[in-house]
Amino acid sequence: MNVKYVLKLNGCILLFDAVAMLLPVMVALYYQESSGVAFAPAILLAIGIGLPLFLLKPKKRELYAREALVTVSVAWFVMSLIGGLPFYFSHEIPSFIDCFFETASGFTTTGATILTDVEALSRCMLFWRSFTHWIGGMGVLVFVMAIASLAGGNNMHLIRAESPGPKVEKILPKANTNSKLLYGMYIGLTFLQVVFLLFGDMPFFDAVTTAFGTAGTGGFGIKNTSMAEYSTYIQAVVTAFMLLFSINFNMYFFIIAKRFSAVWKDEELRLFFGIVAVAVVCIVINNRGMFDSVGSAVHHTAFTVASIISTSGFTTVDFNAWPEFSKTILVVLMFVGACAGSTGGGIKVSRILIMLKSLKKEFTALVHPKSIKTIHMNGKRIDDETTRRATSFMICYIGIFVLSMIIIAFDNMSLETNLTAVAATLNNVGPGLSAVGPTGNYAGFSPLSKLVLTFDMICGRLELFPVMILLLPQTWKKY
Amino acid sequence: MNVKYVLKLNGCILLFDAVAMLLPVMVALYYQESSGVAFAPAILLAIGIGLPLFLLKPKKRELYAREALVTVSVAWFVMSLIGGLPFYFSHEIPSFIDCFFETASGFTTTGATILTDVEALSRCMLFWRSFTHWIGGMGVLVFVMAIASLAGGNNMHLIRAESPGPKVEKILPKANTNSKLLYGMYIGLTFLQVVFLLFGDMPFFDAVTTAFGTAGTGGFGIKNTSMAEYSTYIQAVVTAFMLLFSINFNMYFFIIAKRFSAVWKDEELRLFFGIVAVAVVCIVINNRGMFDSVGSAVHHTAFTVASIISTSGFTTVDFNAWPEFSKTILVVLMFVGACAGSTGGGIKVSRILIMLKSLKKEFTALVHPKSIKTIHMNGKRIDDETTRRATSFMICYIGIFVLSMIIIAFDNMSLETNLTAVAATLNNVGPGLSAVGPTGNYAGFSPLSKLVLTFDMICGRLELFPVMILLLPQTWKKY
Repeated sequence: MNVKYVLKLNGCILLFDAVAMLLPVMVALYYQESSGVAFAPAILLAIGIGLPLFLLKPKKRELYAREALVTVSVAWFVMSLIGGLPFYFSHEIPSFIDCFFETASGFTTTGATILTDVEALSRCMLFWRSFTHWIGGMGVLVFVMAIASLAGGNNMHLIRAESPGPKVEKILPKANTNSKLLYGMYIGLTFLQVVFLLFGDMPFFDAVTTAFGTAGTGGFGIKNTSMAEYSTYIQAVVTAFMLLFSINFNMYFFIIAKRFSAVWKDEELRLFFGIVAVAVVCIVINNRGMFDSVGSAVHHTAFTVASIISTSGFTTVDFNAWPEFSKTILVVLMFVGACAGSTGGGIKVSRILIMLKSLKKEFTALVHPKSIKTIHMNGKRIDDETTRRATSFMICYIGIFVLSMIIIAFDNMSLETNLTAVAATLNNVGPGLSAVGPTGNYAGFSPLSKLVLTFDMICGRLELFPVMILLLPQTWKKY
Repeated sequence: MNVKYVLKLNGCILLFDAVAMLLPVMVALYYQESSGVAFAPAILLAIGIGLPLFLLKPKKRELYAREALVTVSVAWFVMSLIGGLPFYFSHEIPSFIDCFFETASGFTTTGATILTDVEALSRCMLFWRSFTHWIGGMGVLVFVMAIASLAGGNNMHLIRAESPGPKVEKILPKANTNSKLLYGMYIGLTFLQVVFLLFGDMPFFDAVTTAFGTAGTGGFGIKNTSMAEYSTYIQAVVTAFMLLFSINFNMYFFIIAKRFSAVWKDEELRLFFGIVAVAVVCIVINNRGMFDSVGSAVHHTAFTVASIISTSGFTTVDFNAWPEFSKTILVVLMFVGACAGSTGGGIKVSRILIMLKSLKKEFTALVHPKSIKTIHMNGKRIDDETTRRATSFMICYIGIFVLSMIIIAFDNMSLETNLTAVAATLNNVGPGLSAVGPTGNYAGFSPLSKLVLTFDMICGRLELFPVMILLLPQTWKKY
């Protein structure tokens, strides 16, 4: 383990954190909010720890898989701890564990909150809260590396560790160019959404924070009622952009490159929109009686389905009051999640696709023992390692899920609350059902449970393996 | 597909069904119950369909994996349909779907019931209900094949398809001798339990039916309160035998052969008893306040843990009233299930062990890309196919679980009821929580949901693949 290099990279992240916190300070200055002062000690602390680490001079600068995984997971814990300090120093969130929970929920684009009254927060804090979504959505390390070119040009291991999905395809040969392109599209799409929202007469502050929450598929709102108070037009814009941010960003590259057939024939994209369509139809059949018109039912169902499958978590209605069939579909969508290479969470559609294909292969092998044993996606052969890693992911996922449920059950909340609380945090969705439903929040959990759920959020965002590696003794042995 | 041969084997199963139904007829004669007449048309039907099929003369008599899988799954559906007829003809269970559910629940050793008043059944029906557990516990086809030697000496494919666990180890070179030995031990242990129960002054009828339910890890009781009315001694005997019937029967062979170290060092056995011990301790810490003494808490917790992990489903107390932490552990145990090569259901301890080992291997490979990539259990190398099949099982399991939950959610029962109903049927446990808890039953579900849950019971008992094969188009193609 090249500890020095891991520390140096983490120092870099802390400095980035400090720079990022300057933005809410500017918001505080603009709105003349005194709570902006709370950012000062956080920024100083980030620089105070980050700068010495950054100035370390490790002998070797090569980034192996092990270092990349450790760097990424340590960085996400550190970021959430430091990023939570402004809430704590301003006393707007009195408990430090709550601050950690809320900030991790922001960076991991979960959107689960311990706040009972979101609107009581000052504007600079609301901005910072939403901005963490935007930062966390595309990945921090990749961004920093792209700018600083610290990893000696080869940061593919870092990208793999931080990007969602079973396999990271490079669309451009050089990793840094790739990252810059992705960030370009990310910024462009966010800007586009702000424009669309402003066009619907949304206040500028609301438009920017909402776009941050949508782009990262996070779901922190600045209203206690999330998106319910906004116009149907604004809700429709958010629906569309939640879906746009949950598809593989390579699709936008293909569109720019006019490779439309690659988009049209993409198996993951087809399955994703297929699931969305089937879910909307099934739920509308089940819940149409709860709305004035079928149109209204379709509108709110489409919003909710897009919000849940993209793992955003914005709400327009209290879906906890929907019939059980609708709710069960929503819970399933929480697990399905978005496409690989998007900002969304969950198990990911392509991972499910790989697992289903490998299952079909296994069945065929039972019937025809001599059948060919390869699987393909989008015409390309999926190698055994990718398949094995997808199933390993699933096993690890179940393990973390079960352990989390057992620990938080100690709070004696209902099974429905516990199950959906773990599902909503591990899949980075945000709201669950029952006590953690759209009208509820995570304030009722004990500090231990909050720490478990925070752990789940970071595990989910980094897709388990980087965090699990931290717990493996071999990781800490010398070469 | 050698359809003729599959039909012939199914004819054989029907004839076996007819013979098996003679036993409850004798019970009816002994107790002079008129409802025994209801067995006559069922027996005649079984012979009327079974005999012509049995007399078919297929050209080829070789049993490939495909035929074995299809035979096994078709046979279990047919058995449950025919075996349910006596309940229907006697009007003791008026709905045919309920009869099918109840009988499938018997054969698959689930023990889930649609009866609101078990004690209203006549003795011959109670006997038949418990007897189906005993028949289903060890596997029907294996038994029939062992006697009839129909499969030309090589019925390993059948044994594999019907036996629980990721891998069937032959302890004796010849499959038929193997089956006969297993059945010998099964009969011996059942007999032993009856003796122990009679020693505690249990009525003979109660002792036999209870032993049937325990041996098959089924859980049908003959009282509305399951085991609650019996003495502490009897409950303790049942606790012990539930555990004895949920360990790999090979262990008994090792004991007979004085290979004690093979038992002592068996990894699955160690993990199984480790889980039982940890679960009992954790639950007692959580629920001790609900009992008069710690001793009583340990007694009832041990009974419940043994009942759930063995997937029997007998109860002495209403564990649905326990605190959430205890209940969550019980739900997890439902999924864990018993050891491979036992009569218990669930995912199986050895399958979980294989998955955890393969996960550890995967993590190690992430950190040390050049590490050795084999896993071992009990000192033997686990081949890739076994690992792959265990993970495929898991994926298929999740798929069936999710689809079942969505369909039964249409009845608008609570998430807790639906989740545990599917868990309790797919893992062949019996009781779940909430509406299907120890004091509840499955009567409240719609006919569609009952069919789905019946399907889950058979899927669970046959460990998914044989039933899934039926749905695969390739299965039905000619060679």
